[in-house]
This record gives sequence, C-alpha cells and structure tokens, in this order.
Amino acid sequence: MTTRDQIARLDAADPLARFRERFVIDDPETIYLDGNSLGRLPTSTRDRVQQLVGEWGTRLITAWDVWIDLPTRVGDALAAAALGARPGEVIVSDSTTVNLFKLAWAATDGAREGQAIVTDRGNFPTDRYVLDGVARRRGLELRQFDADPIEGPRPEDVAEACGDGQAALVSLSHVSYRSGALADLERITAMARDHGARVLWDLSHSVGAVPIRLKEACAELAVGCTYKYLNAGPGAPAFLFLDHELQRQLATPIQGWFGQRDQFAMERDYDPEPGIRAFLAGTPPVLDLTAVECGVELLAEAGIEGCARKATALTSLIVDLHDEWLAPLGFELGTPRDPARRGGHVSLRHPQAWQITRAMIESARVIPDFRGPDSIRLGVPPLYTRFADVYEALDRVRALVAGGEHERFDPTPARIT
Amino acid sequence: MTTRDQIARLDAADPLARFRERFVIDDPETIYLDGNSLGRLPTSTRDRVQQLVGEWGTRLITAWDVWIDLPTRVGDALAAAALGARPGEVIVSDSTTVNLFKLAWAATDGAREGQAIVTDRGNFPTDRYVLDGVARRRGLELRQFDADPIEGPRPEDVAEACGDGQAALVSLSHVSYRSGALADLERITAMARDHGARVLWDLSHSVGAVPIRLKEACAELAVGCTYKYLNAGPGAPAFLFLDHELQRQLATPIQGWFGQRDQFAMERDYDPEPGIRAFLAGTPPVLDLTAVECGVELLAEAGIEGCARKATALTSLIVDLHDEWLAPLGFELGTPRDPARRGGHVSLRHPQAWQITRAMIESARVIPDFRGPDSIRLGVPPLYTRFADVYEALDRVRALVAGGEHERFDPTPARIT
Repeated sequence: MTTRDQIARLDAADPLARFRERFVIDDPETIYLDGNSLGRLPTSTRDRVQQLVGEWGTRLITAWDVWIDLPTRVGDALAAAALGARPGEVIVSDSTTVNLFKLAWAATDGAREGQAIVTDRGNFPTDRYVLDGVARRRGLELRQFDADPIEGPRPEDVAEACGDGQAALVSLSHVSYRSGALADLERITAMARDHGARVLWDLSHSVGAVPIRLKEACAELAVGCTYKYLNAGPGAPAFLFLDHELQRQLATPIQGWFGQRDQFAMERDYDPEPGIRAFLAGTPPVLDLTAVECGVELLAEAGIEGCARKATALTSLIVDLHDEWLAPLGFELGTPRDPARRGGHVSLRHPQAWQITRAMIESARVIPDFRGPDSIRLGVPPLYTRFADVYEALDRVRALVAGGEHERFDPTPARIT
Repeated sequence: MTTRDQIARLDAADPLARFRERFVIDDPETIYLDGNSLGRLPTSTRDRVQQLVGEWGTRLITAWDVWIDLPTRVGDALAAAALGARPGEVIVSDSTTVNLFKLAWAATDGAREGQAIVTDRGNFPTDRYVLDGVARRRGLELRQFDADPIEGPRPEDVAEACGDGQAALVSLSHVSYRSGALADLERITAMARDHGARVLWDLSHSVGAVPIRLKEACAELAVGCTYKYLNAGPGAPAFLFLDHELQRQLATPIQGWFGQRDQFAMERDYDPEPGIRAFLAGTPPVLDLTAVECGVELLAEAGIEGCARKATALTSLIVDLHDEWLAPLGFELGTPRDPARRGGHVSLRHPQAWQITRAMIESARVIPDFRGPDSIRLGVPPLYTRFADVYEALDRVRALVAGGEHERFDPTPARIT
C-alpha cells in the first residue's frame, strides 16, 4: 500500500521540486495533468513576452537585429538541452505540421514511383495526414502498419513493413500520443536504414520528458512540438532537426526568404543558405518564439536527465496506484508497464472514460485529457508535477468512480481539444 | 511653397488624428516612417497579449475552446474590414511564404508540363523563391517578366507574358515593395483569366493602406502579411484568401490536422473540412494571432476608406516636398506620381541612398527603410502618421543632405532588415 507519508518523502527528496515555483500556479486546488497537451506558463515567459512587446513598441524595426537569429539561436539551445544534436542542426519556426511536410517532401526527393512512405496507423493524426498528402502528390504508396495499441511500433514491425525494399521513408512518433509508449529510436533508425529507407521522427510527445540522443542514434530527420513538455505556450513554433551531412543533400520544397543566402540582397534569384537555415521559410512569429526560448532555458537549467528520472518515477506511481485503486473499478492500463518503454504520460482505459473525464474536471478538479474512445491520459511534466499531485488526483478519481459520481454526466463525447 | 501652417491645418482637420494615441509612442522626437516594414504597437495589443498570457496560465488547456476558432474569426474580421471578401473566405495562420506555397501549389494542380508560372522580376523575393520552388517541382516554367521599375506590372505586361496561352498561374504583388506602385488588380485578374491562367495576389504591401475589393474584382486567390499596415507585430501570422467557389476545387498540399473535418475524432484518415479551414495546417501561434486580432479591430474601427484617403494625402505631401526640397539635391521620385497608382509608401532614389539612410537614423532621428541599391522608402501608415511628421522628416532630410552630413557615413551598405 502506498501511503501519504511515502509520497511526502518523495517530494521532499525531489531535486527538481524548486522548479515548481518558476511556473504560474494560481489555483493550487486544481491538479493539472494535461501538460502533455499544453504545458504551464513559466513566470519567466510571462515577463519576457511583456518585455518583448515593449521592445517592439520602442525599438520598432531596429529590434530585428536581435530577433533575426531567434530561430537558430533557440534551435541551438534546444539541440544542446534536449535533443543530443549539434549546433547548426536545429531551427525553431513554423508548426510541427509544416516542418513535417518540408522534411517528408525533401526526404522523398529521390524516391521512385511505387515506393512507399511507411508509418503506423496509430501515429498522431497530423503526421498521417501530412504523409498521405506527400505520398499522393509524389505517386508513392502510404503504407500504414498496425502497431500494438499499447506497446507502439517495434523494430520488427518496421522491418516487416520495409521488407520488400520499397520503403523510401519511415516516419514515426518517438512517444505514442495515445499510449505513451516510447519507440526504440536507435534500433528502428538502424533497421529502416538497413532497408534503404530514410527515417523522420516526430519528437512532439517525447522532447523534454525523455533523453533524446539524435546524433548517437544516427538519426537524420526529426521535428517536434514545443508547447508540451517545453512549456512554450499555445501554438508556439515547432522545431526541425536535419543532420549536418544531409543538409548538403536535401532541399526544402518551401523556398522562403528566411532560407535565402544574404537575405536582404533582394534582387537575386533563389540561392539557399548552405546550412540548416535553408529550411526556414517566412518571417517567424517572434512573440511565440520568445516563449520557446524561455521554455528551453528552463529545461536546460533543470537538466533533461533529472527531468526524465522524475517523469519515470511519476508515471511509475500512476501505474502503482492504478493497480491498487483503479483496476478493481474497471480500469485497465493503456501504457507499457516497463518504465524504460514509456514517455511522460500514462493512459488509463475505462468503458466510461468520457464520463469519468468530465467528472474529474467538473467534480474533482483534476484536469486530464480524453482520447476517444476509452482513454484518459495523465501527463506528469516533471518541472511542476509533485508526487502528491499524482496521489491526490488518483485518490479523487477512485472516490468519484467508486461513488458513481461520473454517471451523472452525459455519456456522449463532445468536441474536446 | 508648403508651409507649417498648412500642415497644422491638415492635422487639425484629420478625422483619424485621434487614433495616434491608440499606439505606444514613447519617443516623440523620433519620426518613424517604416511602419510599412513593421507597424507600431497598438496599446490594445500590449494589454491583450498580457491578458492572453494570463489566460494560458490560469485556464490552461481549457482556453482552447476560445483559441480554436481564432484563425477563422480573425480571418472573417479581416475579410470585412479590409479585403472585400465574404465570411468563410479568409484564414489567418502560418507565414505569407507558407500560405503562398499552399495556394501556388494548389492552383497549379491541373497544370500541364511545360506550362508557366508568371511573375515579375521585381516581385518581392520570397514570392519569387516560392514560385520558383513550385515551378521546379511541378515541371513548370518560371516566367519572370520585366515590369517598369517605377510603374510596376501593368495589364499589358501580363497579357504579353500570358500571350502564348501557356500560363497556368500569374502571381503578383498588389503594391510593389520597392516603388509602392499599385497594380490594377481587377483588370490584371480579368486579363490573366482571359488567357486561361489563375491569379494569386500578394496583398502584403497594400492591405490596410488601400481599399481592396476582392469579390468585386472576381479575385480568387490571395495572401498577405499582417505586420505592416495591420500593426500585428513581428512575424505575426499571415492571411490566406480563397474564393468560395474555388474551395470546392483546390486542395492544400500541406494536409494538417487543423484542416481536418471533426479534428478531434482522431482515428480517421485524412478528410478535409469542406471550406476554407482545409487550408489551415498545424496549431496556430496564439500569442501572435491575438495581436493580429487587435490590429484588425483597430482598422475596422477607423475604416479602410478613411485610412486610404489619408494615406494618399500623406504620400502626396511627400511627393510635393520632394519636388520642392529634395529634387534640387539629387533625389528622384521612385514612385508613380498619380495618387491612384500608389500604396502607402513612397520611394525616393538617390545615388547616396545608403549614407542618407544612415544619417537620417543616426543624426536626424528619422527611421526610413533602405532598399538597395539606391532607394529610401518612406511609409506613412495612416493610423499614426501625422502630416507634421512628414513635413518635419523631409525638412530634416533636406537639411542633412544640403549640409553634407550623410557623407560622414560609410558608403558600403551593411545587412539591414
């Protein structure tokens, strides 16, 4: 039996505990377990965005001397803090969707008609839609394999999907948005490359929650989101990683002026920068990009190894409490039991998941995330989630389901973000 | 001779004068004539961005119930305030570059190999780069015609460029970024369509400065920037206009989840929204998008007709003072003399333009914009520019050039935004 005393000791011993006060938390009664959809607001971001708006107001156009390098400056900081990549390999600009499009298109430039783009049917929707669009327009096949709904895509799934030698590109999520399963990035990359395919990773649900070592894993292409574990705010621009070597071989389909060599010598024809900047497109959204910078700074200060250790401890606590309290109430674990195979969130399945989600929010002041048809996701971003939050949240869930409180809510899912 | 008294009367009679106090202007000694590159900060934006950051901090994921419709809500407001378009025809999201890419690609879906994308060699760089990228990847010719450097592209230029019937798409800027020439949107659209080509307009340098009547002109495709005359701040997201009829025929190449019908029913294959939302891609940057909303609200309150009248009066004053004071000092007008053929900025040409620009900024506290090799652009956004600002700025330029002050500055242009 897990006790409140044990939990208090875990929080007291937590080296990251002091980071909680770096976030705006105005309602301590509500337990927020959806930071894997939208991370909390860092106090530094609140201040820096205001400062940046002031710079716009007073320095006007001349402030572009500082802003112009934001996409590469923030990219380099992110590469070092969270991605295991080198300077000059990461930019931050545009959405994950647009960046996926750029890289998926560029990576299939040499593909022959009839080759395939491979992904799994459980991959995040925008990934599947983008890949479908690229495949259609290039005369390629979109090959979607079925991965295990809990364990996610495994190396052997990829080997099988690439087995006929016709795969041009494999694109997968590092952590499954639904089950939270962590894919074996290194082995899958090696396996796909053995079959002659390039590999494009979506790190949206892993960056900031698990250590990522792109160079060590010989990864070549990746994108990811900044508004989850990087706490960069709603719709903040995404990142794009492209290995140094490959920068010489791949060309972006969206040829924009931020990717032009000598950008302000405006009379010339398209002549892209030789490095990662070529994959920039238009003018980046500076307010939102500044928020990314703040989020990356916080992560760098805390250190990704410590964050990942704490995320594992928190998800393990969810699994333990699920087994003790929730399994007897009809819940099932929708996430791998092996901590080494998980990201920073856990999925709990229940036939009345929608009603329980509504009751958690409206009666119990616990904010999870519903994913149809039957999953409740609990995200535990390590910078501000306490062990006591997890304990208290699951205790409230136990009480409300045991008491039938959720049955007061409409069983038909409404639109939910 | 123009006198200070005349100028004072113009400002006293200006119905838009009261809008100046709606902007942050902390240094009244500096005259800002570069709002056509980056508009000033509205006080409402300063407050609303702060409020929005607060909403993120307190409402967290639940605030998406309001944010989710921002791209179409702001688009509809912009359509009514400035574009002469209908509800459901405009979205705000992504950069001008990315939006140009989407529409240029979509509009050439039916093009036959060997057909051409037509633009003018003086078009804004990112437009030419994007079109070049689309043309290459589609096996189309990029046909760049030479327009008059002052008058810009004329209907007869377009007719000639399309004369062989091989043009699939014509893409032009409504107002030339360099000379400020206003193209005849209605006649050029009609002429290109007579030749079987679609027409894609870039309204970046015209929106908010001249009345635009897209529906009246039977325009079908347009994009544009919000950080110039719409005062939405550095890198704020751009807009995309697609005529209702054409929404049924064209498909975006970037198939993202914000364009998916029933976005949060996540298991399904790509199934785009039937309307303009299909051209959304990823999650929009909410802080910057909120700034667009504020800018559009200000314009709507002031009214585009009055803004355009005042812009014309201001650019006419620049032309008059140029003739009186600057032409004798070696300046030449780089903008059409006919007020009906201009946008909201005037280009003055001088062999020492770079040195004069530096002297204006560093000695005279006037901020213009340099465009190589020999142009100084003076932008006069009507919501905050006074007639006295123009008079005083040109008086300072006259004094510094007459006194040789500019010759103290290095004649070699540095990188400039």
